[in-house]
This record gives sequence, structure tokens and C-alpha cells, in this order.
Amino acid sequence: MKKHVTSSVALGLVVTSFMVSANEPIETIKPVKEINLAQVELGKKLYFDPRLSKSGFISCNSCHNLSMGGTDNLKTSIGHNWQQGPINAPTVLNSSLNLAQFWDGRAADLKAQAGGPIANPGEMASSHTLAIDVIQSIPQYVREFKQVFGHDKVSIDEVTQAIAEFEKTLVTPNSPFDQWLMGDKDAITEYELSGYALFKNSGCVACHNGEAVGGNSFQKMGVVEAYQAKGNAEGLSAVTGKDADRFKFKVPTLRNVELTYPYFHDGEAESLTEAVDLMGRLQLGRKFSEDETARIVAFLKTLTGDQPNFQLPQLPPSTDATPKPQPFDS
Amino acid sequence: MKKHVTSSVALGLVVTSFMVSANEPIETIKPVKEINLAQVELGKKLYFDPRLSKSGFISCNSCHNLSMGGTDNLKTSIGHNWQQGPINAPTVLNSSLNLAQFWDGRAADLKAQAGGPIANPGEMASSHTLAIDVIQSIPQYVREFKQVFGHDKVSIDEVTQAIAEFEKTLVTPNSPFDQWLMGDKDAITEYELSGYALFKNSGCVACHNGEAVGGNSFQKMGVVEAYQAKGNAEGLSAVTGKDADRFKFKVPTLRNVELTYPYFHDGEAESLTEAVDLMGRLQLGRKFSEDETARIVAFLKTLTGDQPNFQLPQLPPSTDATPKPQPFDS
Repeated sequence: MKKHVTSSVALGLVVTSFMVSANEPIETIKPVKEINLAQVELGKKLYFDPRLSKSGFISCNSCHNLSMGGTDNLKTSIGHNWQQGPINAPTVLNSSLNLAQFWDGRAADLKAQAGGPIANPGEMASSHTLAIDVIQSIPQYVREFKQVFGHDKVSIDEVTQAIAEFEKTLVTPNSPFDQWLMGDKDAITEYELSGYALFKNSGCVACHNGEAVGGNSFQKMGVVEAYQAKGNAEGLSAVTGKDADRFKFKVPTLRNVELTYPYFHDGEAESLTEAVDLMGRLQLGRKFSEDETARIVAFLKTLTGDQPNFQLPQLPPSTDATPKPQPFDS
Repeated sequence: MKKHVTSSVALGLVVTSFMVSANEPIETIKPVKEINLAQVELGKKLYFDPRLSKSGFISCNSCHNLSMGGTDNLKTSIGHNWQQGPINAPTVLNSSLNLAQFWDGRAADLKAQAGGPIANPGEMASSHTLAIDVIQSIPQYVREFKQVFGHDKVSIDEVTQAIAEFEKTLVTPNSPFDQWLMGDKDAITEYELSGYALFKNSGCVACHNGEAVGGNSFQKMGVVEAYQAKGNAEGLSAVTGKDADRFKFKVPTLRNVELTYPYFHDGEAESLTEAVDLMGRLQLGRKFSEDETARIVAFLKTLTGDQPNFQLPQLPPSTDATPKPQPFDS
């Protein structure tokens, strides 16, 4: 701490015990670079297009709703034919910062992830072949794909590439906490800052750190105390086949956590208060007092950044040749 | 015709046999006036908010999707628990121009309509009480209602008023046909214009006229030839109790009809070609040739106007006090 005080004083800044340090375990969200804007605009349409589902009713945005923190705010999602999903839909916001996609990390990146739900019988219940047939039947899409990718053939590769490129734009910079990290000491209150101190000192930052305040490691759910999960999700072991990876899940980002309720892979924690209390006991072996929990929750709410801000996309209409949606035949 | 030719020549305009006349049975869409912008912004949020449904999954926009012509492009809609709706979801676009709402006109206006689906067990499956409880639990909503309506109490009356005010903004002016009506003779092609001539001369305009090209009368489905409807919808008689009103439905607007497939109250006509052919035979006793149908379809596609153009709304988050969505308990 000494060193920082010295340099800050040299710069003429006001020094507090919570002063901004280059060594903070949480980093500001960096601006997105090298974005292909034409792919983004195409991907945005596809993200909102329910014709990628068998029913014609479910789009990416249905469960990763960009009006609601990039989630559906349900414990587990609703899929084709109102099937109950096995796991909580993670937020798409800042998902480009994750070390891998899905709770168990089974997709290496956003592009690999995007094809999954389309063909999952419990989610959008289409197939890549059918989704491409739909797109190929819509001249406005065909033209846009040609313009964006430079060739006539549309395949799932271009579809997922465009969706992933759009998703890369869904970062949420400029939260009060980022403003504080950038040097605006009034961006958050002393109370919120005391929550951040608890968050750091209690060990939460061991897993929730970096740009996304999470998303960069797999950790066992229930380190100190076993977690009684709802559902059958086994976590990373489903991918690695290693027994040691059972109940290891990707640490979720805490960015915009105020908006991404309910919490945990099974969505069983309905409030931030409940989630913080459980994390303390299960992962850290620590029972936070009511006051401590409230301060940490107050800090967590400073992580809500600028939400996606764009015009509602307009989708090109189907044609007589477009395969018809099949909402009720299964 | 003489009078118009004279006056046009006097104005130095080029005169064609399809010249614009003040007597055209279709009128341009008038600018929307006397809009309460604060109500619109609040109503826009509510329109996109799935928490008005029991499941937390279905919003107004689910079935009246503003990315897709204000419809769901399904024969009949998907409701709570994937229930199959009894009737095709009519477009919300230009619905303020309708003489009444719903296919059978059972709601006098948009405000009266908006409360229906929220409490319909087959649609959003909530209740007005529950929807208000949800809203009252969200401080950002409570503040906005107070600001907009000037009092603390939120009731279904303010909710439907705000949604209706938003819906009043969803008009689609500036279609190629409107541009033609306003005097730009190059706005539509000779081929499209020949379709309009057929549309007028064959009698389609008897019902499809005015600003919305429909929406201003109830007519029997199957005047000349009986229509074999799918589903049990009986039409206006369900409202009036009069046997003479059986199978009378509100004439749908043809504005944006290229986007609002499939067609008719049961959604059984999948293409415009099919719809025009059937209307000719059932309502007019006329079998259009393939060429005639194609021309009318080409004309109908000139009725696609400026689509809604606004930022995707951001919804205020629920709180610990907010009643939880119940997607799977029924």
C-alpha cells in the first residue's frame, strides 16, 4: 500500500484506504476491437430470428434476452414444446470473455456455442440442415450472406460466425465500478466500497476476478460444504471424462449480476443475498453476517454496465419456398 | 376522370391512365398525432416484458413480434405451456386504425385489447392482480408509472393505457404505394399498378379500403362460396349473439401483408398467392388467372411501409419481492 500512497500523493490525488490500484484483481472491460460490422448486423438479425427454431417461435434472444441482462431470468429455460431445460441459461453479455462456453465449457468459443441450441431437441429443436434451408429460401438473407462472406453458399459455419461476431459486441463497459477503477472515486459509495473490500478479503476474488469478474476458470460447486444441486448437471467431467471434474462448473461472470437472477447453474438461488450467503458457506467456509452480505450485494450491483443499445432488427420475410414452422407436430 | 386530367395538365404533371386521384379508395397513412411520449416509452417496456405472463417467458412481442411485421408468422399462436391458440395472431401494426380489436371485434380499442392476453389462460396465463403485483415490486417501474400518470397506485388501467399508447405509434407510413398516392408516379411499377387496377375493378376494395386497406368493417368469410375453416372461431356472433353474424370477421388490414403471413383468421393460407386466389373465389365469385393473381400480389407487396424503428428497450430488474415466474407448475 505504501508505494501507491507515495505515487498518488506525488500526482496530487486524494488518497483513501480504498484508492484505485493497478493491482486490483478486477479489471475494466476493454473496448471491443477488430469487429466485422457487416457480420454483426447479419448476426443480430439471426440472433433475433425464431425461424432458426423448429417452431418458428424460439430465437437466441428468447433465452438470452437482451432486454433482461442477456438471460431469461428463469431457473431453467423453456425449450421446444415447453420442455424444461436442464440448466440455467447463462448471460450472453460479456460471454466473449469466457475461457469457454456453456457451464461445462463444452464449446471452445462463441462460434462453437451458437450451433448447439439450434439443433438441440430440447431447445430450438431444429437441425443445421433445416436452418440453412430456411435461410437459403429468403433472398434478402442470401444476398446479405453473399455480401458479408463473399460467396454464394450459406452453411452453418457462416451462420454461427455471424452470430458470434454480434455476440462479441455485447460487452457492458462503464459500470460504476469500472468508473471507480478508472479513477472516479465518487462513482461508488463508501458502503459499496466496503463490500468490495469484503469481496477481496474473504476470498471471492480467488475465482471472481479479471475483466469479467469470473468466466476464466472451472471450480467445484461446493468446495468446503457439499452443494445439493437440483438437476443432473455433472459439470466439466461430462467433457473431460475425469471423475475429479465432477460438479466443476465454469465460474459465472458477475458483470450485470443484478440483472441475471436467478443464480447458480441450477438457478436455485433466487436473490443475490441468498447467492452470496451460499457461496460464502459452500466455497469459503465462511458465514457472512447480514451486514457483510448486504455490503457485498451493494458492491455487486455496481457491476452493472452499459446495456446493449441498438435498434430492434427487422427480419427479412419468408417466401413461398421457405420451410414452414412446425410448432405443434411433435 | 376528365376533371382530374384537366387539373393535372394545368399543373404541368404527366398524366397516365393510373394517375393519382383524390378518389382512390385507399388513403395514405396519416401521421400519428397527440401522442403521450412518456406513456409510449413506458408502454414499450411493458410490451416487451415477459413478466406480464405467468411463465415469465411470453410478452406481447412474442406473438406480435415487431421484428416480423407485428405477428408471429404462425398459423395460430403458442401460449402458456405451449398451448395452441384458436386463431391467427393479427398484426399490431396499424391496429390503431381498426374499427375494433380482435378478429371478432370483442374489444372496442387497443386499451381494451391489451388486458385480454395477459389474463387469458391459453395465452400469457397471468391475472391482472398478479401482473400488477409484479410491477409494484419493481421500484423503477413504480417511479416511472408515478412520473407518467402522476399518482402512486398502479392498476391494470394504467398498464393497458401505456401499452395502447405505444401501439398507437406502430403505424407504417411511406410504403411505395403511399408514395405513389402522394404523387410519385415512379414509386411503383406499371406491373404493380396493373395489380392495383385489378384489385379495384374486381371488387377487393369493397372491403379492403381506407387508410389501413381493411380493418374498418366486419364481413362474412365465404360470401359466394362457403369457407371450410380450421378451428372453431365463430366470429362476430360470439360478441353480438346474432346468428346473422356467424363467420363474420373483421376484415384484416393489408398493410405490410407481405410480412404478416400466414393469412385468414385460421392462418390456413400460407402464401399471398393462395390468399388472393381464395378471396377471389369465396368472396367475389371470381377465379383470377395466374397472371392476374401475380399482378395483385405484386401490388399488395407495395403496401409494406416503414417498420417500427426504435432501440430495444431495457427492462428494470425484478427485486427479492417480485413474485417469481411459474413456467412449469401447471
